[in-house]
Amino acid sequence: MNRVLNKDVAQKIGEEVIVAGWLHRLRDLNKFGFAILRDRTGLLQVVLDADQLGQIKDLQMETVLRVTGRVVKKQSKDPNANEVEVQATKVEVLSPVKDVVPVEINKDNLEVQLETLLDNRVITLRHPKQRAIFRVQAALVKGFRTYMDSQDFTEIFFPVLAGAASEGGAEFFKVDYYGREATLSQSAQLYKQITMGVFEGVYGVSYSFRAEKFATSRHLTEFNQLEFEVGFVDNMEDIMNYAEASIRTMLKTVSEDCQTELSLLNTTLPPLGEKFPRIRLTEALELYKQGTGIDETAEPDLSPAAEKWLSTVWGPKEHNCGFVFVTHYPEKKRPFYTVVDPEDLTSTLSFDLIGFGSEIISGGLRINRYDEQVERIKAKGLNPADFEDYLMMHKFGIPPEGGFGMGLQRMTQNILGLDNIKEATLFPRDVQRLRP
Amino acid sequence: MNRVLNKDVAQKIGEEVIVAGWLHRLRDLNKFGFAILRDRTGLLQVVLDADQLGQIKDLQMETVLRVTGRVVKKQSKDPNANEVEVQATKVEVLSPVKDVVPVEINKDNLEVQLETLLDNRVITLRHPKQRAIFRVQAALVKGFRTYMDSQDFTEIFFPVLAGAASEGGAEFFKVDYYGREATLSQSAQLYKQITMGVFEGVYGVSYSFRAEKFATSRHLTEFNQLEFEVGFVDNMEDIMNYAEASIRTMLKTVSEDCQTELSLLNTTLPPLGEKFPRIRLTEALELYKQGTGIDETAEPDLSPAAEKWLSTVWGPKEHNCGFVFVTHYPEKKRPFYTVVDPEDLTSTLSFDLIGFGSEIISGGLRINRYDEQVERIKAKGLNPADFEDYLMMHKFGIPPEGGFGMGLQRMTQNILGLDNIKEATLFPRDVQRLRP
Repeated sequence: MNRVLNKDVAQKIGEEVIVAGWLHRLRDLNKFGFAILRDRTGLLQVVLDADQLGQIKDLQMETVLRVTGRVVKKQSKDPNANEVEVQATKVEVLSPVKDVVPVEINKDNLEVQLETLLDNRVITLRHPKQRAIFRVQAALVKGFRTYMDSQDFTEIFFPVLAGAASEGGAEFFKVDYYGREATLSQSAQLYKQITMGVFEGVYGVSYSFRAEKFATSRHLTEFNQLEFEVGFVDNMEDIMNYAEASIRTMLKTVSEDCQTELSLLNTTLPPLGEKFPRIRLTEALELYKQGTGIDETAEPDLSPAAEKWLSTVWGPKEHNCGFVFVTHYPEKKRPFYTVVDPEDLTSTLSFDLIGFGSEIISGGLRINRYDEQVERIKAKGLNPADFEDYLMMHKFGIPPEGGFGMGLQRMTQNILGLDNIKEATLFPRDVQRLRP
Repeated sequence: MNRVLNKDVAQKIGEEVIVAGWLHRLRDLNKFGFAILRDRTGLLQVVLDADQLGQIKDLQMETVLRVTGRVVKKQSKDPNANEVEVQATKVEVLSPVKDVVPVEINKDNLEVQLETLLDNRVITLRHPKQRAIFRVQAALVKGFRTYMDSQDFTEIFFPVLAGAASEGGAEFFKVDYYGREATLSQSAQLYKQITMGVFEGVYGVSYSFRAEKFATSRHLTEFNQLEFEVGFVDNMEDIMNYAEASIRTMLKTVSEDCQTELSLLNTTLPPLGEKFPRIRLTEALELYKQGTGIDETAEPDLSPAAEKWLSTVWGPKEHNCGFVFVTHYPEKKRPFYTVVDPEDLTSTLSFDLIGFGSEIISGGLRINRYDEQVERIKAKGLNPADFEDYLMMHKFGIPPEGGFGMGLQRMTQNILGLDNIKEATLFPRDVQRLRP
């Protein structure tokens, strides 16, 4: 007889079943009792007679049990149990628990501090609301790939170990590599662009590492990015079309696969409108000034407050849309590979997609001609000799191209409205934390 | 007018089209000429008049071109071109080439040494046979995920940075982590097992790093593994069933998505039979002795020659199947988390899947009870105190479980019969190599 998942027990009324999972709660009513059994699909009430109760009443919560029994319509009114319950005929311990569980995970909410949540990841991830976060994350990635595959783009796997810096400026982690110095990749940009000469359209999940000294609610030292790059584009609109279509498929997949998780986490997806509005940075700052009275029109970027207003107030009100493309960021704020706007040399053909109150995608057109790229590297105060591999591809012909990157953990944080990005990371790494 | 891909041009006879790609070859017949244009879908012949020929005859190979022209039935007999050709009306350079291409990629085969192949990855990946390798790799991963999603397992993302060793013995890369020592992950085992308490069935693509001093045709310092782990299993047969179903879906996906690539690479997929045979190591060694006269029955493992014989001679002949599960490896040859066979304490409930002449999957049942795991760690001469995070999950209840790992680059090497695993790696890392 095969194990039946808790969610499927309701279809087996009158039958004998085997169920298995964790002892989530136990109510001892002396002559009999109720065990709440948790599996990955939910909770199930198991009715125990006096002998069975005696067998398990001294067991710790989280003990792994296998229960044989008959499915009946529910008699108890426990709102956490299913509409059916199982009257146990046999209870077996599959895995005993050796200690008192350090965090109570049988409450509706895990009421613990962030450090406790992460120190006890082995236990805390078992809470249904924690599990739900990572089911949504998996659905986001699945949706991203579904869209990319539908366009016949090729998935590639990026290296983590690198020799020299792929972009100047930010801080690298250093690796002892057979006595030499290696670094951990900060960006998949080089690899995405090389493959423009091969596949013309690529995507993948990259790992990026940033040895930033500060810890904020939005930073990790190790994170994943959903990467995309495509060649033979005519203009930046093409790249934004791909970004918009990706987001639409991702949210559709979450919506289809994760209804239970979304309602458990009390999450409503934002409106998508007919087309995501596309406005210049200067326009966005002007709208923000008109809408709020706050004048940031002299700034080279959107403030967090302005990003929030644009995507949660202006977009929904004016376009029934929680996403806004902001384009033409200043040359000084964008990396050396970004195409400068020929009509305004202080500006670039770049964009951010703002959604859920903050930036979720950053992208744009890349320079594809060698002379132009060498010149831009110099103009940024960098040395072309440090970019030998990077420039080799420009030397041998890559098409007009562009792409974008999307932080996976940040996207998960945003969509679910989590306070800290570490809550959206299965095993987060920060300045202090390298475990579990 | 949108760009048409080379493969779609044959459907546009009589129409005007725009095509774009790389100048792959040029035949100058003085009064006119033929340019072979390469894009990601193949080659296309473009007919140039004297003026157009004059415009491009001094350009380097690999120059990125956009050509406007009319599609006509082919007049030339060049076997590398399509059945149609494009009579150019306009030729534009999208990206010029600044130097002579260091490797000739317009031959049927790239006849270069491995070092040259890898040093010039920016160029060599463009060769259709190189591109084909990574299209097959992408299809393998897609097939793996397709199967795992069909079982409602959850994709997870593994960390790369780790504090202490997750398994004893092998060599770690060390990272300077804010003045502390961190390591690069050698195994996703800890993370897969923790999530048995959460999702019960997980999969993902991990990164593993091995600071091995030697370089062989089968080793990389950085590689990917397709990871799988599942809880509430009854026995090792369950895990082999998942492994077999994964391989079947992976090869089906390659077969469906990559016919062009398989024939370009002259690859035939092995027979799959009705069910992959499952034999004990002792049986396998006995069969090898009977079949070849080579007696390795005293060995604790299969030699490369025995793996080759089993999967390419014995399996196909006896079971019409290129895959063979070999089970019950000795306790001394398996990691500390492997379940010891209760019927033979020198043996384990573990397996390898042998295919394409060598091991492609390694898996088995894992110890899920705390006391048993502590005892095994000690028996292996290791210190339980070094496994605090690992043992925490056993302490708080994980179900009977097992899983497997499959090296992505090794699988790609094997399926395509490549001499060196680096040929199956987009950007390989070895003792010497960290670039591009």
